[in-house]
Amino acid sequence: KVSGRVHVDGWGFADSDDNISIFNGGGDVDDALDPQNRLGFRRLRFGVKGDIKDNMIYKIEMEFAGGNDSEFRDAYLGWEELPFLQTLLIGNQKRPYGLDHLNSSRFNVFIERPFVIESFNQDARRLGIASYGYDDAQLFNWRYGVYNQRNVQSLGNYIDDHLQLELTGRLASTPWYDEVSGGRGYAHFAISGTVADTDPDAINGNEARFRSRPEARSSGRWIDTGRIASADAFQMMGVEAVINLGALQLVGEYQTMNVDRIDGFSDANLDGGYVYASYFLTGEHMPWDRKSGTLARITPFQNFWSVRRCDGGVERGWGAWQVAVRYSTADFNDGVINDGVFGGQGDAWTFGLNWYWNPNARMQFNYINGQIANRIVSDPADPPAPAGPLDNTLQTGDYSIYGVRFMVDF
Amino acid sequence: KVSGRVHVDGWGFADSDDNISIFNGGGDVDDALDPQNRLGFRRLRFGVKGDIKDNMIYKIEMEFAGGNDSEFRDAYLGWEELPFLQTLLIGNQKRPYGLDHLNSSRFNVFIERPFVIESFNQDARRLGIASYGYDDAQLFNWRYGVYNQRNVQSLGNYIDDHLQLELTGRLASTPWYDEVSGGRGYAHFAISGTVADTDPDAINGNEARFRSRPEARSSGRWIDTGRIASADAFQMMGVEAVINLGALQLVGEYQTMNVDRIDGFSDANLDGGYVYASYFLTGEHMPWDRKSGTLARITPFQNFWSVRRCDGGVERGWGAWQVAVRYSTADFNDGVINDGVFGGQGDAWTFGLNWYWNPNARMQFNYINGQIANRIVSDPADPPAPAGPLDNTLQTGDYSIYGVRFMVDF
Amino acid sequence: KVSGRVHVDGWGFADSDDNISIFNGGGDVDDALDPQNRLGFRRLRFGVKGDIKDNMIYKIEMEFAGGNDSEFRDAYLGWEELPFLQTLLIGNQKRPYGLDHLNSSRFNVFIERPFVIESFNQDARRLGIASYGYDDAQLFNWRYGVYNQRNVQSLGNYIDDHLQLELTGRLASTPWYDEVSGGRGYAHFAISGTVADTDPDAINGNEARFRSRPEARSSGRWIDTGRIASADAFQMMGVEAVINLGALQLVGEYQTMNVDRIDGFSDANLDGGYVYASYFLTGEHMPWDRKSGTLARITPFQNFWSVRRCDGGVERGWGAWQVAVRYSTADFNDGVINDGVFGGQGDAWTFGLNWYWNPNARMQFNYINGQIANRIVSDPADPPAPAGPLDNTLQTGDYSIYGVRFMVDF
Repeated sequence: KVSGRVHVDGWGFADSDDNISIFNGGGDVDDALDPQNRLGFRRLRFGVKGDIKDNMIYKIEMEFAGGNDSEFRDAYLGWEELPFLQTLLIGNQKRPYGLDHLNSSRFNVFIERPFVIESFNQDARRLGIASYGYDDAQLFNWRYGVYNQRNVQSLGNYIDDHLQLELTGRLASTPWYDEVSGGRGYAHFAISGTVADTDPDAINGNEARFRSRPEARSSGRWIDTGRIASADAFQMMGVEAVINLGALQLVGEYQTMNVDRIDGFSDANLDGGYVYASYFLTGEHMPWDRKSGTLARITPFQNFWSVRRCDGGVERGWGAWQVAVRYSTADFNDGVINDGVFGGQGDAWTFGLNWYWNPNARMQFNYINGQIANRIVSDPADPPAPAGPLDNTLQTGDYSIYGVRFMVDF
Repeated sequence: KVSGRVHVDGWGFADSDDNISIFNGGGDVDDALDPQNRLGFRRLRFGVKGDIKDNMIYKIEMEFAGGNDSEFRDAYLGWEELPFLQTLLIGNQKRPYGLDHLNSSRFNVFIERPFVIESFNQDARRLGIASYGYDDAQLFNWRYGVYNQRNVQSLGNYIDDHLQLELTGRLASTPWYDEVSGGRGYAHFAISGTVADTDPDAINGNEARFRSRPEARSSGRWIDTGRIASADAFQMMGVEAVINLGALQLVGEYQTMNVDRIDGFSDANLDGGYVYASYFLTGEHMPWDRKSGTLARITPFQNFWSVRRCDGGVERGWGAWQVAVRYSTADFNDGVINDGVFGGQGDAWTFGLNWYWNPNARMQFNYINGQIANRIVSDPADPPAPAGPLDNTLQTGDYSIYGVRFMVDF
Repeated sequence: KVSGRVHVDGWGFADSDDNISIFNGGGDVDDALDPQNRLGFRRLRFGVKGDIKDNMIYKIEMEFAGGNDSEFRDAYLGWEELPFLQTLLIGNQKRPYGLDHLNSSRFNVFIERPFVIESFNQDARRLGIASYGYDDAQLFNWRYGVYNQRNVQSLGNYIDDHLQLELTGRLASTPWYDEVSGGRGYAHFAISGTVADTDPDAINGNEARFRSRPEARSSGRWIDTGRIASADAFQMMGVEAVINLGALQLVGEYQTMNVDRIDGFSDANLDGGYVYASYFLTGEHMPWDRKSGTLARITPFQNFWSVRRCDGGVERGWGAWQVAVRYSTADFNDGVINDGVFGGQGDAWTFGLNWYWNPNARMQFNYINGQIANRIVSDPADPPAPAGPLDNTLQTGDYSIYGVRFMVDF
């Protein structure tokens, strides 16, 4: 079976402070890079999946939005119907750090993911072996596995004697699910966590690096801890909750990360979270998948433009309309200069409008207003003494961004 | 539905003047590069397309002939059966600059496209939104849209505050179509044009750059205006006509381009065209698609080698044989040295022989004899004064090339 | 039809001498590179193949294990049922140098191929035109063709006036095939050879370069002749034999290569071979394809884990288990220093265990113990006189490696 998706995005960086250009360029004053508007493909994927008799499955999905630089996404083989382990997959697959990255980009309410989700679980997929399961009553679902922390989607292999493994898991529950209405009401709660062994001696650096774009598609990461020096291990813990009441959905997540450091550096603690509310003006609801604990496919009451009736006639339809607002925050600062971590503190509001044309296609509008505060900035052109005005100081900038996406999946 | 094509090409640069090596290297004497013979893949594509209920469509087709460097080609989503707009597509799609680039490489009579077509509409596809339509009687068909002028097939995105938009359209008519013979006789006429706003301040330069290989696959472009300095806008106008009389087809196109320049530079005018005649020795004809105003799939009377008869027997067949000759010209020179544009003047005759094995496969032979005249050449090794013999002078070279292609599509 | 495969590999370089690091880095002391463990994708392929009425076929298969760097593999068009030529393919396809590279990686007994196979026929596929045939009694099968020697899977084209063609063929026989038992007993014998015209003047060097990894996936080639200076031609001859007796299979190949050199250099002779025995503990056998003279798909008596019975019940199964041992040798040294070739002499034992889960999936374990002897090493940091201890000397190193592969194909 061939599947895929097309996401065409436009982003406008309406307004931003000068410091934002420094953050966008990587934190050095010399590399400051004014964020540029953008028009193009965010995702252009297709691939194959299927099953092998009697109980194996496989999937390869390629991302071609990079043009010359293809990357793989889901790429695994595995078994279903195993005792105890249920589904077991080996290969490139999403790490279960909380909810928002497990939700497919096909179903997520906002165009891009929140700071803390993007930072702690950058690009989500890693090479690993993981078990996926749920109980018969669909009250609980879980997934857990061992992953190597390096993203190999662009190289294909991790070539290093220093493996950087982690043990990651998520346990979710759907304590309320209104079967009668077809799932228009439900509650979800989950905890997730990872215990990761980073290696400061790894050839291309340790994997304790947490960074995020501004919940929009910019060239640089506006929050960025860099590779945290002498990071020897980290532990992440997350909690998440969803309440759905018909057309209204309320979602919140909080994640906290502790980084153990050696060579005399102090440990660092980073955290963040988000809450959002979404509402269908046209009365639909966000469906829920109780086997995976994630959002499911949204079906408008009426498709956009042509609706073929059973009697052979054609009606006009206007699709489904949804509004949403999100508040997201992340604090990636901890400690004192020359010892601590100063990736920056992000706070942003996102206002969204989604127009669903049919179950496989929609358009999304986002307006984002946010601030990155107290990110460390360096000014290499200044000599160490006397330090220049921007040398190793904490800087702050505000921004506003608008974005639009056209999307189909198949 | 999965579709694609395989084109295997061989090119031999039989004979060329020394100046051709300078043109092939980019116009600097120091970079002169003798054109080398070539053997490999010209196109190696596959992808997926389909429809989404009730009236949406999508397509992704990848080009893998570059080996490590994949690129996308058609990559869009859209609607059919819309009021007024009929078919509306968003994404990477061909700009309607005249006929020859709208014709699929699967059906085109010659291996490579004429100078003016390749130059004004390099690689044809751009990110845009376009409407495609035709009238019920199939007397008229049209397409028009707004495109960003940068080709993003290798990068995926245009990242620049300076959008370079254009409004492009083509209106075509099929005033004569002989239904009785199944379309063995028809006449087609069309006009096309674009109004393009180039931006001299764009990060990677303005899009007023017009260049072409010698209607064969060379490393360099033998006609090349470079990015025309201070180009602020351009307008293209094209006319085209096709007459088909059974096995004989006559085709001609002419296009003219005006480039508006600022900073005190004179405007530049470039133009070119081609005519060709093709004839099926075996009596078939070139079919026409009246909904898009382009060549359609050619069906031999007998497939090559095995022809399964209705009675279960097998006959031998020799496919279809077609001969063709094309004259192509382009004048990309205008003005005086240090102010004008001197991309060169191309004139070439191409002689073609096509052997169609079945509706999806054929072999093509081309012999090309041409001249590139008065292209500006620089000699950086010479100091500005006294200027060397090749410094900022207009040079001319003759060449002859032969090519062969093996092709299937599926 | 869409097909493909997923191979996930892990390699551990358990133990190796210091000289191995020098070989792994390319033979210069300054570039010594300790072999690093590896985890990732060895093959991640999918593509399309099909037939075109009445008697044409095509195939495109892409390799995406390189992440950003896609490559094509089989990419051809062709005919079946031709008189005399039988099947004729044009495009990228395997050269018939002996058995082990013609065997699919889906069916081969060991994870990686032997020294001599990898070296003489690196990456196996080349652009060419080749005929494939067999007689009605399936006693003989053959393939022969003309290929260009440069691998174009990463670039797509060979751009060079200096073609480097070769004429290659293989004639195989299956003198014994036990039809009654469904092919549990058979004998195969074949000879293969090539006559290759390399060109010392080719832009990117001549194609007389023979090199191999240590029958495992390392970064560098541990045996490597480099491009043999002034190589003007080479001729390869190989013999191969297979005996299958139920669960037991015995296989051996020997290949010898003569390199003709000009400019006063002596000709060089390289050779190598391997033998292996494999045995199914669970009683299955290695099937044989008498039309191509290669291994065919292995079918376990019972699939792993779930076996659906005809009566609708489910049984548990443990798949098929196979053990194997291989001895491989290659001698790529010939002549005297400053005139001869000193790519090194490899000898290795590989012990394998294969767990077949079903006809399309299996797991492989390999343990390798080997030695690379007398490879020439240079020490650029040493001045020519007095020569340093490692300057232009022949060095030897031992190693042991373990590997594991998870594999599905579809």
